[in-house]
Amino acid sequence: MNNLHYTSPELMAMEQRERANLINSITGFKALALIGTVDLKGQTNLAIFNSLVHIGAHPPLLGFICRPDSVERHTLDNIQKTGYYTINHVHKDFYQKAHQTSARYNKDQSEFDATGLNAIYKHQFLAPFVNESNIQIGMHLKEEIVISSNNTIMIIGEMIHIEIPKSCLTLDGFLDIERAGTITVSGLDSYHTTTRISRLSYAKPDKEIIEEPLIYKD
Amino acid sequence: MNNLHYTSPELMAMEQRERANLINSITGFKALALIGTVDLKGQTNLAIFNSLVHIGAHPPLLGFICRPDSVERHTLDNIQKTGYYTINHVHKDFYQKAHQTSARYNKDQSEFDATGLNAIYKHQFLAPFVNESNIQIGMHLKEEIVISSNNTIMIIGEMIHIEIPKSCLTLDGFLDIERAGTITVSGLDSYHTTTRISRLSYAKPDKEIIEEPLIYKD
Repeated sequence: MNNLHYTSPELMAMEQRERANLINSITGFKALALIGTVDLKGQTNLAIFNSLVHIGAHPPLLGFICRPDSVERHTLDNIQKTGYYTINHVHKDFYQKAHQTSARYNKDQSEFDATGLNAIYKHQFLAPFVNESNIQIGMHLKEEIVISSNNTIMIIGEMIHIEIPKSCLTLDGFLDIERAGTITVSGLDSYHTTTRISRLSYAKPDKEIIEEPLIYKD
Repeated sequence: MNNLHYTSPELMAMEQRERANLINSITGFKALALIGTVDLKGQTNLAIFNSLVHIGAHPPLLGFICRPDSVERHTLDNIQKTGYYTINHVHKDFYQKAHQTSARYNKDQSEFDATGLNAIYKHQFLAPFVNESNIQIGMHLKEEIVISSNNTIMIIGEMIHIEIPKSCLTLDGFLDIERAGTITVSGLDSYHTTTRISRLSYAKPDKEIIEEPLIYKD
């Protein structure tokens, strides 16, 4: 292929929007989620995030990056004040509404109302889930880390509740999120469905990798 | 849909492998990359990671999570000693080889040799790139953060070099990684190609989202 090579000073000299698009897309495909919160007056907030990262399974921890100077600050405020939030997968049938939550609404305007997505409260959990989402996680704030390189904040939480479609769970615990209709994002605004190539067996030195069959519980 | 609901204690009581599969897949689709490093004796190392996260664009920063007690420690050792590493996208034509790098090879055995992937040195950069990868990033270590919730480490680096296919860059800086053949992963071992639904315009309150056309530079 005909390649372009950029060095650090060339990246720093790029026009801001161009660099934001390039650096946000070069990370690879990203987990996409709507984070639902509520403030102490009961005002709900919903925001789209593409910076989710798996931190560990025991205890089950998820992290995400927050830019305090952006629309993400309402989410951050609510999490800091209440300690609770929800993470909800995004599907093809409502991805435009999910994208619309990234608009700069005022704090007194709920993105649930603005986009028509439905908040649902359950499991005696403080924060609202997205009713349209097939995979829903109730999170409890564990740790807040300042990344000094650029003053962003990493929020780490523990999964307190998970709700998943029974038909998507396999015998060994793998959750088939493609079957659940979860989509992925690249850059800031490009949405993609997926097609499984295969699931591979656990790798060992000097052992051939084989395809792992998907055997659903249901 | 018929849903399953798990609470925190139920997740903690799950069989270890089952919980690892479930919690690793519930995050959503993830960025997939091979991280190339070299030790001070010139011994190369290559390892697959699915915990990449965008930290910021100015300066261009990428983070990833490292578990010091796993095969990932060779990568971590080399980055800590040399300060440099490469991030290389994974494509359908070599994803099995990429997966195979997760096997527990000895420190004196290079995953490049073991899998047949080719190391390439260029741009006077210390760490080896993966020649088969269409998108390559040369990284410099900036920050190392201990996540106290489970003693994992977040490595944050700055992009010093990027090399991308000219045909995949659009006029506004968006890099079409789907066109570059980049794939995504769910859970620990399920690999997926993608199909773009659409790229959406910047969201504003009370404004209709429209589809953003992809206009390539080349």
